[in-house]
Amino acid sequence: MKSVEITLPEWLPGFLDGRTLFNDDTSKMELAVALARRNIAEGGGPFGAAVFDRADGRLVSAGMNLVVPANNSALHAEMVAIVFAEKLLKSYSLATKGRFELFTSCAPCAMCLGAVLWSGVERLVYAAKADDARAIGFDEGPVFDESYNYLEERGIEVVHGFMRKEGRAVLQAYLAGGGNIYNP
Amino acid sequence: MKSVEITLPEWLPGFLDGRTLFNDDTSKMELAVALARRNIAEGGGPFGAAVFDRADGRLVSAGMNLVVPANNSALHAEMVAIVFAEKLLKSYSLATKGRFELFTSCAPCAMCLGAVLWSGVERLVYAAKADDARAIGFDEGPVFDESYNYLEERGIEVVHGFMRKEGRAVLQAYLAGGGNIYNP
Repeated sequence: MKSVEITLPEWLPGFLDGRTLFNDDTSKMELAVALARRNIAEGGGPFGAAVFDRADGRLVSAGMNLVVPANNSALHAEMVAIVFAEKLLKSYSLATKGRFELFTSCAPCAMCLGAVLWSGVERLVYAAKADDARAIGFDEGPVFDESYNYLEERGIEVVHGFMRKEGRAVLQAYLAGGGNIYNP
Repeated sequence: MKSVEITLPEWLPGFLDGRTLFNDDTSKMELAVALARRNIAEGGGPFGAAVFDRADGRLVSAGMNLVVPANNSALHAEMVAIVFAEKLLKSYSLATKGRFELFTSCAPCAMCLGAVLWSGVERLVYAAKADDARAIGFDEGPVFDESYNYLEERGIEVVHGFMRKEGRAVLQAYLAGGGNIYNP
């Protein structure tokens, strides 16, 4: 096997419906949470994320958890959003291309938190807290207060639990719908 | 953009030269370190990794750092090896397919350490220590003693600094050759 392809779902363009500008934190997080909700309906995990250009609120890339449909444990929503943003901007560090931020419907796991650091985004905003994910059976991996301190010391602004209620509601809906808790 | 393709280097089959069985830790780590060394010569980062089937020592997948050539900050050697192993075995958790182990030429960064947990490998063996990577200017991200404890509590055996001298030598060779320290 020589290559692995990461493919965005066919429903994404219709879901976005031409929307490209998101001018405040609320509208950006609403998008991340709506991606998570739609992704559940399409057989994915209950997590959504998006990268925005801070200069103009332009959506750069959208991500959703594709672990189960793609048989790929690395395809958390944040990873998908980051990988597509870098592809679009042709750089392994978004920091070289402007000022970017990542919104995600749930606190990043250990893998995604590390990926945020390498991506070059300068701001991370998440909705549901790690405890909300754990409450429905997901593991978040080794993430500690010191992990966030590490990012902040390197200049990444972190906003914790913004629109937590909305983020948590998606997780609860996934649980209520009998969603697959992979890697419990 | 609808998809991102992760492609293994064209030199890999020739490098492996038909070798499929690796029957002890030394031969497995020699492969990971040799992948790192060859990858430097081919314009990649100084890191190599491989997944093996513990039942018979069969090589399942090889990985190398492709961050710079692929413009993708997620493509650390461990991530590449894991993603290709899961693709080959058609599962988002290797734990459902047998007993697997990951060898890597250097201690995993925060992202890769999280990815190891989600991959379902049951053993992690690394050569160079995090300090050896930091010594040439690479950041390892928020990895703490507690991070490894977290993996071990979940049943993952970790072997630290196995053939460290050989792993460190590759990093030093990269530095001496003027290699690009991305994400310093």
